[in-house]
Amino acid sequence: MTVPMDHAGRRARFSEALTAAGIDLAFCPPSGDLEYLTGFPRRMASFGNNEYANQWVAGALFRPGAEPVYVIPQGYAAFNLPGGIDGEVVAVANTDDAATVFAGLLRKHGPPRTVAVSARTFGATAVRILETLPEVRLADLDTVLNPLRRVKSAEELHALERASLICDTVMAEITPRVAVGVTELEIAAEIDYLMREHGGRTSSFDTGVFAMGPRDGRDASARVSANALVPGLGVSFDFGTVVDGYCSDFGRTVHLGEPGEEYSRVYDVVIAAQAAGMAAALPGATAADVHRATRQVIVDAGYGDWFRHRTGHCIGLDTHERPFISEEDHTVLEEGMTFTIEPSIFWPGHVGARVEDLFVCTPTGAHSLNRYHREMVVV
Amino acid sequence: MTVPMDHAGRRARFSEALTAAGIDLAFCPPSGDLEYLTGFPRRMASFGNNEYANQWVAGALFRPGAEPVYVIPQGYAAFNLPGGIDGEVVAVANTDDAATVFAGLLRKHGPPRTVAVSARTFGATAVRILETLPEVRLADLDTVLNPLRRVKSAEELHALERASLICDTVMAEITPRVAVGVTELEIAAEIDYLMREHGGRTSSFDTGVFAMGPRDGRDASARVSANALVPGLGVSFDFGTVVDGYCSDFGRTVHLGEPGEEYSRVYDVVIAAQAAGMAAALPGATAADVHRATRQVIVDAGYGDWFRHRTGHCIGLDTHERPFISEEDHTVLEEGMTFTIEPSIFWPGHVGARVEDLFVCTPTGAHSLNRYHREMVVV
Repeated sequence: MTVPMDHAGRRARFSEALTAAGIDLAFCPPSGDLEYLTGFPRRMASFGNNEYANQWVAGALFRPGAEPVYVIPQGYAAFNLPGGIDGEVVAVANTDDAATVFAGLLRKHGPPRTVAVSARTFGATAVRILETLPEVRLADLDTVLNPLRRVKSAEELHALERASLICDTVMAEITPRVAVGVTELEIAAEIDYLMREHGGRTSSFDTGVFAMGPRDGRDASARVSANALVPGLGVSFDFGTVVDGYCSDFGRTVHLGEPGEEYSRVYDVVIAAQAAGMAAALPGATAADVHRATRQVIVDAGYGDWFRHRTGHCIGLDTHERPFISEEDHTVLEEGMTFTIEPSIFWPGHVGARVEDLFVCTPTGAHSLNRYHREMVVV
Repeated sequence: MTVPMDHAGRRARFSEALTAAGIDLAFCPPSGDLEYLTGFPRRMASFGNNEYANQWVAGALFRPGAEPVYVIPQGYAAFNLPGGIDGEVVAVANTDDAATVFAGLLRKHGPPRTVAVSARTFGATAVRILETLPEVRLADLDTVLNPLRRVKSAEELHALERASLICDTVMAEITPRVAVGVTELEIAAEIDYLMREHGGRTSSFDTGVFAMGPRDGRDASARVSANALVPGLGVSFDFGTVVDGYCSDFGRTVHLGEPGEEYSRVYDVVIAAQAAGMAAALPGATAADVHRATRQVIVDAGYGDWFRHRTGHCIGLDTHERPFISEEDHTVLEEGMTFTIEPSIFWPGHVGARVEDLFVCTPTGAHSLNRYHREMVVV
């Protein structure tokens, strides 16, 4: 069941924020930013770049107090917008001179003084804006949009929860598949399939299934291998899917064969670290506070050298959104922000364990949108 | 077997091209451009955006006649460069002031007059360049790099061929799975798995498996569905994988149940259209000439309204590279350019058939890097 998103309300707040920032015109290509403001569908992420003629011009232009103007190349319209799009559309045919069309739109209401570009705007688009408007100031739209996007509404939380519950279901379904002789790749492929079978649109990032422990010297930079599983390893999972545009991100570790004393200790430390982060994630705390609280548990247990990444990141239409739950990020948490807390201890040749859930900031601390248990699992 | 790529030779040609274009400094984030010039590994594509602290600064700076300077944020280094990278590296810790570091690098050899940015440079990076260098001209690096990248060397052709042969193998393996009651999603997931099992790094784009015909009114904009297959439909495949950074892209249609007269005719038309394109793809012809030759066969057969896209696109480190084999692209083909020829007839509610192979331009026309047959297949 899809809950309609309040795109008009978002645009109203965006319009006010543009005015407050002194931005006359903003450009968003198809991206999380554009989907947030309008519902405009993104293409799947791919190992590619520039797909259509005139793709650099694809997106929408926003002026404060006005409805967006969509600029849609023929190649995008033909296969990605079967239902069309409501609003003012400037269609750009393959053989059109897109630079002239774009210049006309930029100057239509007089030359703007400040044009802001969304993060994933093509370099070619920025160059065209500067060529068309030699006096313009180019600005980073993220400074305006991120503060709006990072606090989630009830309908956004609902989408994030549905995306997270798919992860819970898939974790339960995949656990019995973890067995000696099965390859990490087979398990990862099955996870990708199951997430879509349960209604996810795509994987929100490349699924990780990696075994670590005393029998294997690998580190966690190879997220999946063709290796068959052998006993005595912790198998870490890291996966997520997309529901109504919103991304989930989830992780657990299960142990293949009876674990030794060190794995059991490390597993408990990771769970305790996450719990410390959850308790610290109160409105008014900073992202760095949550990182510090999480990390301290691992440092105190003597494994600080093997927790080598930040504690987490905000999440929504993009898998990774600012603020990051990290040492350098002093953003103050607000009720309704959603983020991961994902401590790990990855010590190559010794032990590997990790836990990750998606949380929303509430007055009583972090509330998990995942419901999967955190007990140690041995298969 | 990996054939080493001649990154130093590429950089030498790039350096000359920068000088010829009057570009003092170029910036490439992790992307096909950076992998082409240096072998710097890309992250997997994902439904995300900004993953690490200071990610906007990640990449390399190039000056004509000098070796690149890599700028690598802590989050990227920790998990994506386990082997490190040869050359001059400026490490940026999470807590560093990346803007100051970047400004220092931009100005290190005196303020450049023209800075070119690679296509996938973040908007924030372009803004920082302009703030640091108020007098600078921003340029589109694609105009310099695309002419270098589009003609492939022997080792690049070897990688493209290996990526293409995986598609051939997987097409043979998946065909017996096409059966009544199996879902498109199950088949697509199996394809994604098989491509990796045979050594592909990832899918080069979202795998398409879509059934069309008189029993189903869908169009080709939904690339995969959870529908179970029923008899009387043509099932079109569109998939590719990545080997040593190079992308393949392949397609066939197989018919489920005995085909009617129209499907058989349309299948032959699509094959004949591709053959016409192959014959036209001689050095000296334009991309538009190849499109016209391909399209004319379909128009002459009376199905012009249902061939709704361009004929193909160049391909290499990115799935879609310019020139496009399309009406608007008058680039002259050269020996060693690699591209798809992928005509389709997708008539919702009636018939759907498509063929796609990856070709290299040779003095005798397009030579296919795929070896899979083009006979009509009925299952």
